[in-house]
Formats: sequence, C-alpha cells, structure tokens
Amino acid sequence: MGTTLVINPGSSSRKYALFHDRKSVVELRYEATNIGFEMCASGTNSQQVCSAISREDFASAFDRVAAEVKNYLQKDRRQLDTVCIRIVAPGTAFQKHQRIDDAYLTALRQRESAAPLHIPTILLEIQRIRKHFPTVKMVAASDSAFHATLPEVARNFSIDRSDAEIFDIYRFGFHGLSVSSIVRRVHATTGANPERLIVCHIGNGASVTAVKDGKSVDTTMGFSPASGLPMGSRAGDLDPEGLLELMRLKNLKTAETEVYLNTRGGLQGLSGDSDIRQLLDRRTKGDAVATGALDHFAYHVQKAIASFTVALGGLDMVVLTGTAAVRSSELRALLLGKLAHLGIVIDEDKNHALVGQDGTCSVHKSSVKVVVMRTDEMGEMAAIVDCLNLSS
Amino acid sequence: MGTTLVINPGSSSRKYALFHDRKSVVELRYEATNIGFEMCASGTNSQQVCSAISREDFASAFDRVAAEVKNYLQKDRRQLDTVCIRIVAPGTAFQKHQRIDDAYLTALRQRESAAPLHIPTILLEIQRIRKHFPTVKMVAASDSAFHATLPEVARNFSIDRSDAEIFDIYRFGFHGLSVSSIVRRVHATTGANPERLIVCHIGNGASVTAVKDGKSVDTTMGFSPASGLPMGSRAGDLDPEGLLELMRLKNLKTAETEVYLNTRGGLQGLSGDSDIRQLLDRRTKGDAVATGALDHFAYHVQKAIASFTVALGGLDMVVLTGTAAVRSSELRALLLGKLAHLGIVIDEDKNHALVGQDGTCSVHKSSVKVVVMRTDEMGEMAAIVDCLNLSS
Repeated sequence: MGTTLVINPGSSSRKYALFHDRKSVVELRYEATNIGFEMCASGTNSQQVCSAISREDFASAFDRVAAEVKNYLQKDRRQLDTVCIRIVAPGTAFQKHQRIDDAYLTALRQRESAAPLHIPTILLEIQRIRKHFPTVKMVAASDSAFHATLPEVARNFSIDRSDAEIFDIYRFGFHGLSVSSIVRRVHATTGANPERLIVCHIGNGASVTAVKDGKSVDTTMGFSPASGLPMGSRAGDLDPEGLLELMRLKNLKTAETEVYLNTRGGLQGLSGDSDIRQLLDRRTKGDAVATGALDHFAYHVQKAIASFTVALGGLDMVVLTGTAAVRSSELRALLLGKLAHLGIVIDEDKNHALVGQDGTCSVHKSSVKVVVMRTDEMGEMAAIVDCLNLSS
Repeated sequence: MGTTLVINPGSSSRKYALFHDRKSVVELRYEATNIGFEMCASGTNSQQVCSAISREDFASAFDRVAAEVKNYLQKDRRQLDTVCIRIVAPGTAFQKHQRIDDAYLTALRQRESAAPLHIPTILLEIQRIRKHFPTVKMVAASDSAFHATLPEVARNFSIDRSDAEIFDIYRFGFHGLSVSSIVRRVHATTGANPERLIVCHIGNGASVTAVKDGKSVDTTMGFSPASGLPMGSRAGDLDPEGLLELMRLKNLKTAETEVYLNTRGGLQGLSGDSDIRQLLDRRTKGDAVATGALDHFAYHVQKAIASFTVALGGLDMVVLTGTAAVRSSELRALLLGKLAHLGIVIDEDKNHALVGQDGTCSVHKSSVKVVVMRTDEMGEMAAIVDCLNLSS
C-alpha cells in the first residue's frame, strides 16, 4: 500500500494516522471536549502522550499533522502515496469508496446543508490537504458504503417514490466504517460471520446496525448522521408533524432547524449536557434529569435492538463499540439491562472488569453473546486504500 | 345515560350512532372510498343497508343524521341529552375526555394546522351539531386520553425540554378509543388484563400500542395521527433531515409539507394506491410495486411490535383490530408471518377461517396468543359519556 495518510474528521474530534505498509507509524488525535481542546500523539512505540491545546491549535491541526508527516517521509526518504479521508455525506453518489476529483467535490458542496456538522469540516480538511500535498491522490472512504446492501424495506422512506428518486432521499446510514471494522474483527477472531449480529456504536454519535451474514440489513441512522437514535446533541428521529409545529411556533427556517436538531437535541436537549460521562456522574449523585436523559437514551437503543431482530429473524451476537460503550461498564449495563426476553443477559462481574478493552460480557449461558470491541475505523480506511489500489 | 348521539369523524369516514340507555338504536355510517361515496344505515334490528351516495350527500351527512335522530326522539317522546364526538388533536389539553365549551373550541382551532386531516372536519361537525341541536351538551371523547399513562421515555421526544414544554410537543398518541375498547373487551372475555399486550389497529390509519396491565406504555403515533407507521396516505415517521432536504429542494412551506406528508406518503407514495384491499389484489396478480409497498408496511409493523417488547419486558398477547386487519387473513399473515422468534406463530387454517369476525388465530402452542377482535370506538364513547355523567 505504500504510504497513506488516513484522516477521520468526526463531529467533535479529528484523527490522523500515517500508515506505511499497513502499519501505523504516526498517530495524532485532536478532540474538542466540554472543558477545552486536547491533542494526543503516539509514535511507533504506541505510547500515547496527551496535552491541552488552544482553540487555534485545534483549528490548525492539519498544519501540525502535515509537518509530522513530512518529517517522517524525509527521514525515511519516502513519499506520500495517498490521503484517505472519511466522508460522511448523504447521497447515493457518496455511498461508495472512490477517488476524490473535482466532480466529487462539487457534488459534496451541493449536499453541504444536509450534514452541517460533517461536510463543512471535510471540505476544509480537503483544502488543507491540497495546500500541503498538492499532487497527492485523495481517496474518499464512505461512511455509508457498508449500508449499500440495505433491502428496499429499510432503504426506502415512506414517501413518494419518484420524489425519493429525484431528490435522492433514502436511508444511507452512517458509522459504516466502524461497523465494517467490527465485522472484519469478529470474522478474524471467530473465523466466520455470525448469522445474526447487531453492532451498537455508542460515542458522541450513536447508531445500531443489523448485520446478517456479514452484510448490513438495517441501521438507525437514515438520510443524515443526525437521524436515528438520540445522541450527544443530535435529536435523532423525530415526529415529522412535531417538527413542523416547532418550526411554525419558533419561526425556524430549514437551515436553522437543521442546526437546532444537530446541536440542541438528544442528551443535550433533555439534560443540558451532551457528554455521557458527565451524565453518568450526575446520575450517580442522584440527579433525576440526568437519570431521565440516560433512561431515554437507553430505551431507544433497546427498542432499536429489539426491532432489528425482525430483519435478522432472531439474534446471535451483540457487539458494543464506540468510545462511550467501551469505556463504561455502567453505560453498558444500562443499555443492555432490560433485554433478557431477547436472550441478552449480562454478567455483572465480567462487564465490570472490562474497561477500555475487548472482551465478552454476557453470562456463560446467554443465548446471545455480548462482546465489547474497540472500533478500528483508521485500519478499515487503510484497508480500503489497499483494495482500491488493487482494483484500479 | 339517557340518549346520546355518538359521532366519529375519521379521516375517510364518518360514523354516527344514537344510544339510548347504552343500547345503539340508530346507526349511520358514511364512507369515502376510491370509487365514490357510500352510506350504510342500520336500525334496532341491526340489519345494515348500504347504498351509493353523491359527494353532496356525503358533505351534508349530518343533516340526514339529525333528521333521523329527531324522528326517533319524536316517536319515543325523548330528548337528546348529549352529543359525544371523537377528538383527534395534538395537545396536552386534548388528552382527556371533557365537556366541550368555547374555550375548548378556541384551543382546538389553534391546533388546526397540526392535524389537517382531522381537526377541520371536527370543527365543521361541531358547527352542524350546534345548528341542529343548539342547546345540547357536547362531550369530547379524546383519542389520546388512553395514552396519558405513557412513561417519560416514551412521551418525550429527544428535543430541548423547555421547548417541548412551551410549545407542547410530546407523543400524545391516537387510536386511544379503539385500543381502550379492545382492552375493555379482552378484560370482559378473559376476566383479567393480560400483563403484556400489543394492540395493532390497522385501518386507513395504522398504529401499534404496547399495553401493560391495561395501561398504555408506548405507541407508534406521536405528536399527530400522521406519525408512526406508514399508513394509507400518511408518511408516518420520517428522517427529520430527509424531510428538511425535501422541503428545501421542493421549496415547500410548513403547511404544504403537512399536506404532502398526510396525502402523498405511506402506501400511496410507495405504490400510487392508498387502499390495502387494492394492493392485496395487485399483489395476488404479481405486481412488484404493490408487493414492495405491502412488504414495507409489514416490516414497519413488525419492527414496532418487536420494539415494544422492550416496554413490556416480553409479550403475552397480540390483538389485531381495525377494518383492514379484521377483514383480510392475507394481510394478517403478512403482518405477523416473520415473528416466530418473538413467540408469535399463526395457524394458517384458523387465520383463514376468520373473516370479519373475532377469534384466535395463533397455533395452539404459540407462547403469544394472537387474537382478531373488532374495535368498538362507538361503544367506548357511549361508556365515556356515562362515566363523565357519573363523575360530574
């Protein structure tokens, strides 16, 4: 694969990794938290060093990254072959991994208003790549590609067929890179795809995906990454007439409504706090509002899991991934605590013992195996570049 | 209860029944179908006579009803004590059965745009009642009252708490009169409330409700009767960002969007046909579009049933009600055919034998009992008038 820089611009973080021959050689992670900004670096010895940074450092993250990359390349007398960037954008055109060219950028700009937390960041990042590496090949790793296998009953919304086609309004699904990395890791561990698998990615964004024999058959995120489950600050699915009433009474235009749904919904809207860690703390202290918001979140995750048993015809395995789920046994217990009727039974001790690492947390006799597994979006993107190079 | 005229103005039909001492003595039903208008009358001998009528006769239905009622009253030298009308309107204020006064009518008018298929019809009907019976007591039978028991996780949308409160945006739920009539009938038949019951009302409107120990704990319809499942012509739940994108690209204002979602969504939008009977016919003839639309509908009903097992902690009984479900064994097989993993197994012969009548259609050893049961919204409304009279 030569040398590839992988870029993952999330809604609240940006991750960078330089891969050489499938090994990560430089890693930098920038994160915006509710107390400020942070940057973590790790080199080949995989020890991570984190430090607080300024808003300006966060904004100019890519300049620092480019310097580190150039430094590495110079030292080893190598060139940068490919930059691969995660693309979160609603559209059939964006539902495959592909080379980024001018036509692609034009199409991306046209959908900017439909994913206001994601597309503008991506476009800025691409500008910066072009500034620092003017001739490098750029590859789009689609966060929806994994969901291109959705059957029509899941992909279609219940609207006029021709409008859906003309205006390209379908369930595209997101978190596809994360889910496919999990499917790949489960396959690598067990030697096969479980027949009926549900993957819950619980981070700042949250989604549940039904995976049958390795293929996505339904997912909670729909047209945009703001739909589906309630999330940190995104409202998720919402009664359309309730939304129209809110627009009428608050006198909101569509663009304002978009921002409102992306920033003032979900846990933020219900509790004034978008951070699950903070909410778990407040819950421990007996805060009823925080407890209510977490219960609300858990209820919707549980309903999604239960509803996807229809697409799967039952359930064999649940994988919990995403920072929040991997980090907190308390959250996991909350999310999967009331699903015994579906065969999901958590072992309290096993669950408690798993913090920030992979492992099984269901009881020995649970008919559904519950596994905690770290996602590997960066590795998935490096693998995508490999595949595209092989097929081109 | 004296003499009560019960009025049920639905989205595509209007039903009238005059009750005297809890017995229905005059019944008139008006229906708009895709081939025209129909009126059915039945007297005390409960034989029904139907005939095609003109659009004008349909529009002036209440004049005919008033004449029949006056005729009955005169003959028996009685007076009309109460008119009870089914109210389908989003709002905490409308979520209880109550006397209709001027303040109530003002509140109703203020929410008119939020339920454009229902509220205008109700307001017109109330005008006609006042014209024919200027001094009669009017009672609102709330179609949401049964769902007033929803816990917060189901009642709240994932939006800003204070906006929800100020603008009264909650899951109110509808089909409450139908579901409570089913709960009453199940209780009357078995002598108890099943612990974990799901009621599917499948007609022109469609909803699924989770009933725990006789109380509603979750339901698919939300702020308005156009939300939740896809229906005849209503879109049901829809990705909010997909909706905003559609508004932007089609240049729709909120009121136009409301009409669009109410009339061009659901089965109509997916197949060009809102009538389940027609779609089943087309499906029999191998029509792929009709088959796809019915599969889409069934999938969403199934997902709702599965998701509500979370609220119930499992499942003991499913009741299918509403015209479409009671009439067609084919539809019932389609709706409940893929839920064996939840313990729902239909007996093909029993199901086939049930047309337009009550009965059980699950296999003998099914852990979940599946029952077909005709709804009794009119009887429920007569009972409500009794209760209000007793408590006032």
